[in-house]
Amino acid sequence: MKLFYINDIVSKTTIDGQIEISCWIKNKRTSGAITFLEIEDSTGSINAIAEKNILGDPSYNLLRKTPIESSVKIFGNLQADPHKETLWEIKIVHFDVINKATKQLSPSPRTLNDPFNKKYANQILNNRHLYIRNSKISSVIKIKHQMLIAIREWFNSNKFTEVDTPILTQSNLYDNNNTFNTDYFGTKAYLSQCAGLYLGAMVPALEKVYTITPAFRKESSKSPRHNPEFYHLKGQMAFYNLQETMKLVEDFIYHTVIFIDTNCSKDLSQLEININTKMYEPPYPVISYLDSIKLLKSNGINIKIGQSLNEKAEQCIADKYNKPTFIMNIPSEIEPFPYSLTDDKLFTKTADLLIPNGFGEILGIAEFIYDTEELKTRMKEKKKDPKENNLEWYTDLSKFGDVPKSGFGMGVERLLRAILKLPHIRDCYMFPRLYGRQPYP
Amino acid sequence: MKLFYINDIVSKTTIDGQIEISCWIKNKRTSGAITFLEIEDSTGSINAIAEKNILGDPSYNLLRKTPIESSVKIFGNLQADPHKETLWEIKIVHFDVINKATKQLSPSPRTLNDPFNKKYANQILNNRHLYIRNSKISSVIKIKHQMLIAIREWFNSNKFTEVDTPILTQSNLYDNNNTFNTDYFGTKAYLSQCAGLYLGAMVPALEKVYTITPAFRKESSKSPRHNPEFYHLKGQMAFYNLQETMKLVEDFIYHTVIFIDTNCSKDLSQLEININTKMYEPPYPVISYLDSIKLLKSNGINIKIGQSLNEKAEQCIADKYNKPTFIMNIPSEIEPFPYSLTDDKLFTKTADLLIPNGFGEILGIAEFIYDTEELKTRMKEKKKDPKENNLEWYTDLSKFGDVPKSGFGMGVERLLRAILKLPHIRDCYMFPRLYGRQPYP
Repeated sequence: MKLFYINDIVSKTTIDGQIEISCWIKNKRTSGAITFLEIEDSTGSINAIAEKNILGDPSYNLLRKTPIESSVKIFGNLQADPHKETLWEIKIVHFDVINKATKQLSPSPRTLNDPFNKKYANQILNNRHLYIRNSKISSVIKIKHQMLIAIREWFNSNKFTEVDTPILTQSNLYDNNNTFNTDYFGTKAYLSQCAGLYLGAMVPALEKVYTITPAFRKESSKSPRHNPEFYHLKGQMAFYNLQETMKLVEDFIYHTVIFIDTNCSKDLSQLEININTKMYEPPYPVISYLDSIKLLKSNGINIKIGQSLNEKAEQCIADKYNKPTFIMNIPSEIEPFPYSLTDDKLFTKTADLLIPNGFGEILGIAEFIYDTEELKTRMKEKKKDPKENNLEWYTDLSKFGDVPKSGFGMGVERLLRAILKLPHIRDCYMFPRLYGRQPYP
Repeated sequence: MKLFYINDIVSKTTIDGQIEISCWIKNKRTSGAITFLEIEDSTGSINAIAEKNILGDPSYNLLRKTPIESSVKIFGNLQADPHKETLWEIKIVHFDVINKATKQLSPSPRTLNDPFNKKYANQILNNRHLYIRNSKISSVIKIKHQMLIAIREWFNSNKFTEVDTPILTQSNLYDNNNTFNTDYFGTKAYLSQCAGLYLGAMVPALEKVYTITPAFRKESSKSPRHNPEFYHLKGQMAFYNLQETMKLVEDFIYHTVIFIDTNCSKDLSQLEININTKMYEPPYPVISYLDSIKLLKSNGINIKIGQSLNEKAEQCIADKYNKPTFIMNIPSEIEPFPYSLTDDKLFTKTADLLIPNGFGEILGIAEFIYDTEELKTRMKEKKKDPKENNLEWYTDLSKFGDVPKSGFGMGVERLLRAILKLPHIRDCYMFPRLYGRQPYP
């Protein structure tokens, strides 16, 4: 087991004896009888110096020939860092090779300074298993971890139960054209597009539920906000209406943003990011879908009532307010069957949350139909025959005392991308799955 | 929004004004001009009494005709419960129907006292969307939620990073015969059997990582511990050996058991379960695979060296110690390619953890090969050509300074089942997926 990490050294206030550290060589430069190393582990990096006259010829030559990315064990003494980059540097007195790197990659994973730059995208995606060693890439993952801690903390302390929902299903929320299919012991199953239907069944049992689960959409989109496999945060609450859910969403998003800003300072500075916490402070402006169409037209964007907003339209609206912005009452013809309709049946009791600066929609809210006849009519309208679509169980809910309820769904990585202002959704995954690429590695 | 829950009433110490509660009718009995209701929400149940002469004829008759499972809103006053089941009962002064149940199920979901009984299995699985309202079933889910809080708390406070691993993959740990397959935009993909390979790539970046993710095995098994879709807790740690990982596993399991015992008393008493915390206290006995074969033979169980232990064999060993028991050094011929071998190459540096009383294996530990030549030899032996099996990226790791490492994988629901002594793994899911059943609902 490894007992000391580079972070333990960096944060030392006094020199107290020899240190021993298992790590990787990040960078190396030799100047005659002196070799300067930058070594790295999961907690940070530090400079180390090897001198031929201290190590002796064989050991010094071995060190010189050990390439970057090799794993090594270094024994040494601390001395003040003359370059003041950190407090200390390590004067090496002995070193062992754990595993010598026999291949190299260019640019090298640990030294690449700009891993989100488009020009490296293919190289990084093809070698994702190695570029995750890049400290900026791993900082995103560390922040993602903290983001999920923040989200769970918020929901758990607000009396929600986190539940499991199945991936393999025969019941789709949307149509069956954008599903991944599989053979389930002789019968056809889909990979879940959305856990919302299943949460609906849990509402009469647990009242306030959420899940953070993989979701799948077989969509041929190369936009920087779409990918076929993503994490979906879904919540559903008995007796909540649309407005109450909008308030809930504001609260948990702001909590999450503040949590990251407070707890991830090291990784944020690694990424050279200042989070715009002020922007995420509630309340968020609300505009109706109808008013948004007027606003778009007055800004020269041509859109008809009943159409979905494209990315350009979303950006126009959110940028006007320069805050996360709710668009309320999306037309019923473009929303799926479970969502409640307004009195005139033309719109739904829904709200989409848009983030400014091109990050667009990250979250959608809806009230749900809980009346048997209303659901029947709406399913007919959306051509969702309960039997044909394996949704008889869902229609059962309304017959067994279902209640007024509301819920939301958020793309976990969409929020992360927006908070960290990352250029592409692919930067928010360890191993992203993207349209136009094999799911490899 | 609902402001008061039944639990708030039950825990009141004084009567202070009229109460108002949105809930479901669990049970109902009429005796002339008096109707006794048991009402329930996600926090508990309480008795309520309606009298004709208080409510008046029309309202009383409406209440009488409102069947169980209907959702209702009750207004009333508290009075001491004459049956002393709880402190209070509710004297109804007014009531509204939220949604009248138009169908009934027998036995009714909320009153069924024995939902884990085999004789109800089919009825419950066919109507899982309704039986999750049963308070014993929902207690299991509430405890599962707390179990995952405990697990995450342990790993987060021990400097692990929780990471995301993909479900859609082209790289299998085991063979390709027990995978669910899907078409990924024209190329074949599998649903992940195990996230372990991906964690391996993260070790040189983050050193200590874990994930809690769905995993899939297309196995035709009807045993009470197998199901094709389950939650897998996987961890992997740089510079850990087998023994250190066994110690880690003991620690987090004991932490989890104590956490549940401490924080879930209400749901445990709902389930009438006393957790055997003493049994889970480390250290756990260790027996080598070879010694376990001797032990089995002396107990009349016929098994040859090189065979996997069946359920009967596992039970025999764990019951002998009456503690969670590690079986160490499983033969190399039955373990997959990434696991390190012992010096004689006949066995692996592995340990499986068995739970007594028939719950069997819940977790496996392994050290991993990190040397290029060793990995090459072993993959040849296991007929895993890197190119054919889309594992070239995995073999890359050893060429880029991979390090000694160890990891484990646990069936989340297997631990839950063992702790709660549930008869079948299906009882640990909201919507279990089982061999021999359609994935419906």
